[in-house]
Amino acid sequence: MFGKLSAPAVREIERVLGTKHVRRDAPLRREYGEDALGRGHPPDLVVFPGSAADVAAVVRLCAAQRVPLTPRGAGTGYTGGAVPSRGGVVLALDRMDRIKAIDEANLLAVVEPNVVTGALQAAVERAGLFYPPDPASLDRSAIGGNVAECAGGPRAFKYGTTRRYVLGLEAVLPTGEIIRTGGKTVKNVVGYDLTQLLIGSEGTLAIITEITLRLVPRPAARRVLRAWFANVEKAVAAVRGVLAAGVVPAALELVDAVCLAAARARGGAGIAPDGAGAALIVEVDGTPRAVDEELRRAAEACEAAGAGGVVAARDEAERTALWQARRDLSLALRAAAPRKINHDVVVPQARIPDLFDAVDGLRRDLQLDIACFGHVGDGNIHVNLLVDPEDPAQMARAHAAERRLFEAVVALEGSISGEHGIGFTKQPYLHLELSAETIALMRRLKQAFDPHGILNPGKIFPEVAS
Amino acid sequence: MFGKLSAPAVREIERVLGTKHVRRDAPLRREYGEDALGRGHPPDLVVFPGSAADVAAVVRLCAAQRVPLTPRGAGTGYTGGAVPSRGGVVLALDRMDRIKAIDEANLLAVVEPNVVTGALQAAVERAGLFYPPDPASLDRSAIGGNVAECAGGPRAFKYGTTRRYVLGLEAVLPTGEIIRTGGKTVKNVVGYDLTQLLIGSEGTLAIITEITLRLVPRPAARRVLRAWFANVEKAVAAVRGVLAAGVVPAALELVDAVCLAAARARGGAGIAPDGAGAALIVEVDGTPRAVDEELRRAAEACEAAGAGGVVAARDEAERTALWQARRDLSLALRAAAPRKINHDVVVPQARIPDLFDAVDGLRRDLQLDIACFGHVGDGNIHVNLLVDPEDPAQMARAHAAERRLFEAVVALEGSISGEHGIGFTKQPYLHLELSAETIALMRRLKQAFDPHGILNPGKIFPEVAS
Repeated sequence: MFGKLSAPAVREIERVLGTKHVRRDAPLRREYGEDALGRGHPPDLVVFPGSAADVAAVVRLCAAQRVPLTPRGAGTGYTGGAVPSRGGVVLALDRMDRIKAIDEANLLAVVEPNVVTGALQAAVERAGLFYPPDPASLDRSAIGGNVAECAGGPRAFKYGTTRRYVLGLEAVLPTGEIIRTGGKTVKNVVGYDLTQLLIGSEGTLAIITEITLRLVPRPAARRVLRAWFANVEKAVAAVRGVLAAGVVPAALELVDAVCLAAARARGGAGIAPDGAGAALIVEVDGTPRAVDEELRRAAEACEAAGAGGVVAARDEAERTALWQARRDLSLALRAAAPRKINHDVVVPQARIPDLFDAVDGLRRDLQLDIACFGHVGDGNIHVNLLVDPEDPAQMARAHAAERRLFEAVVALEGSISGEHGIGFTKQPYLHLELSAETIALMRRLKQAFDPHGILNPGKIFPEVAS
Repeated sequence: MFGKLSAPAVREIERVLGTKHVRRDAPLRREYGEDALGRGHPPDLVVFPGSAADVAAVVRLCAAQRVPLTPRGAGTGYTGGAVPSRGGVVLALDRMDRIKAIDEANLLAVVEPNVVTGALQAAVERAGLFYPPDPASLDRSAIGGNVAECAGGPRAFKYGTTRRYVLGLEAVLPTGEIIRTGGKTVKNVVGYDLTQLLIGSEGTLAIITEITLRLVPRPAARRVLRAWFANVEKAVAAVRGVLAAGVVPAALELVDAVCLAAARARGGAGIAPDGAGAALIVEVDGTPRAVDEELRRAAEACEAAGAGGVVAARDEAERTALWQARRDLSLALRAAAPRKINHDVVVPQARIPDLFDAVDGLRRDLQLDIACFGHVGDGNIHVNLLVDPEDPAQMARAHAAERRLFEAVVALEGSISGEHGIGFTKQPYLHLELSAETIALMRRLKQAFDPHGILNPGKIFPEVAS
């Protein structure tokens, strides 16, 4: 079905991109054949385009010879989106990492896809502006990958995910045309919303070469509190209380007892004291007086829900330390087991206790360590299976747990992925959430973009036509 | 290319929907052949389905006989989206007007498409919740139409447009399948975002039969101020000052001198005194203390920008009166001329003064009355050409003005429609904003949904293939 690039085609790519930007040495092929998941398939060739025109030239040659093409940003994904499912060409966007403009007057930024999200945030904050989406990987992940996967993060509760901040895109179609979608305005209803369609399409519809992002004014103040509870139910009740008090936190994070224990095992006790069954982190931002009022209301709501303790960070140093402790949870869990399989499931908020009940059932029935934390305001809980890949029996149980988890989530009217996408890891479960008619429609859309199926094949959809 | 429904097909629709829900009397056909624009083409048949299954049955019969089908909500659109471009069947969703659920625990509502937006807002506010999008037509327009067009309104500045509140849809494809997109969660990255693709697709891709909407907690307090200025430039400078002060107003509206004069001519002086060159309305919402602080900061910013006066509404009655005065602008402009041609253009915020310059040029060169108001925070200005359809010379100048306006907007990196869509009125200008490659891609998407082209033909795309 797929071809290999002919020698003249490779020479043509070398001519356009420059020889040093076309690589096929084995270590580099291995490096670009994996992402944060640690699974994948090495490409035959890794090319480093410097512009949309470079990308289009590579795409046209691959399209003509039916060669699979995988766009890749920083490779920090968890579902294999940036990794070939077979050989072919990896289109590594490493060189396209410029912030082209930070436009203070229009509250927007224009960037190439491989700008690191955290670097972008720092740059816009220096200009008194704010780019809210904050995936945990923000110090390494590229904004193009954030767009391709529709990254979230703690601040999505108040500010929305990446989707809300993308005003326009430049992208190369799998047939080689360069298109522009949306633009520099916050509203645009001219034709179909291709911008929104490309966001979260996991690099299967087009290769994003430029992104126009909406920025917002940097909040004048922000404060954070942590609260701990005897169990998850009480923490969830506190969340309801915070919202009922009219507070819209910038972030609203839940951490379960397994995570708290793992953090303590690494010497980190920054979130909750020994014996806590769950913890909440609530951050508010806005004008200084509003922040004080909202923090007070949030603290009262936590106390009313039976918190064992509520502690507000007294200064920016304490605030930063608390968020570092939150981000270190991933490291703590990695230290607790050889592998952490992180599933980013989502349920409607009132079903969060049911989700935790389902996880308890998995722990009990399948004898697995499972640690949960996440964006409780959004109902988006990261369920981490802590496993040892060298233990086949345990891995089989983890596999069973994965399926049971996704079935439970769908039964709770939830979604099997809120942030990471499908890639190749969740392909077998796509039909749990989507009907055959819906999958067939999505395949027709894929076909409308990519008639030869060369762009990032083997992702999202099961290989056999449904 | 298109057929007519056979007599047996009509009898089959009558059997499924009930005879009284299938109508072909001339007055009703005329009524359902127009929208707020007052232009259109009467259908051959108007059918009133009561369920998604009813819709699917009608769609399958029309698809089999290649009969054009136009879905219609409340018919309050400005671009002809709900009106046949030729005969065929109007699928009038009048009967599908139930609020199926207001789910306080999960902050969402499930509604049929013909719920009136204002009625939905009232119902959710009684439950202590809030559905922010507030198109000026909210007392008449249907939520399904709001979704199909991606309606905005003053509160879009802080809260976003309809797009931000739609979590999931049930829809009938033009081939008769019933699909569900998205769901009840605020995050979902499973497959392509069909929900976002259907929003703003102007009834050309699928017929929306159920909508799951995200709600937010009702703000505890809101306050509004009005300020007036010598000219639009100063008002725009005040907008920049408000935002620079870290205030995120719930609404930020600009009214120009022509509108203020029209309002005064009808006895309404509620916005600004005689002689004002422009006025701003700034509303803030949130917790009571935050609201007071933000209102104070907004007032200071207006004064710093040289406001002639700044007046805060003292109570809810004054607040309501001010917003009524704002909504009455449309009526005042209608009284000022036999016809008002309302164009909802958008530019990046810093280009707003350039947009007003361009409008001044049109006034001067083409001797037209043009009144501007709108959502200045979003750069979304309603440019109203005040004309007399009985004056062919003036109408020709208005036509020229329309093209020049759209060319100017595109040159300012703006969009020719922020809220109303393309329908058939802006079709001739689509290519000003979108490239041939982009339009061709959109046509392929249309084809992927609607292989026979029966759903709402003659909308968005020029009839001749580009």
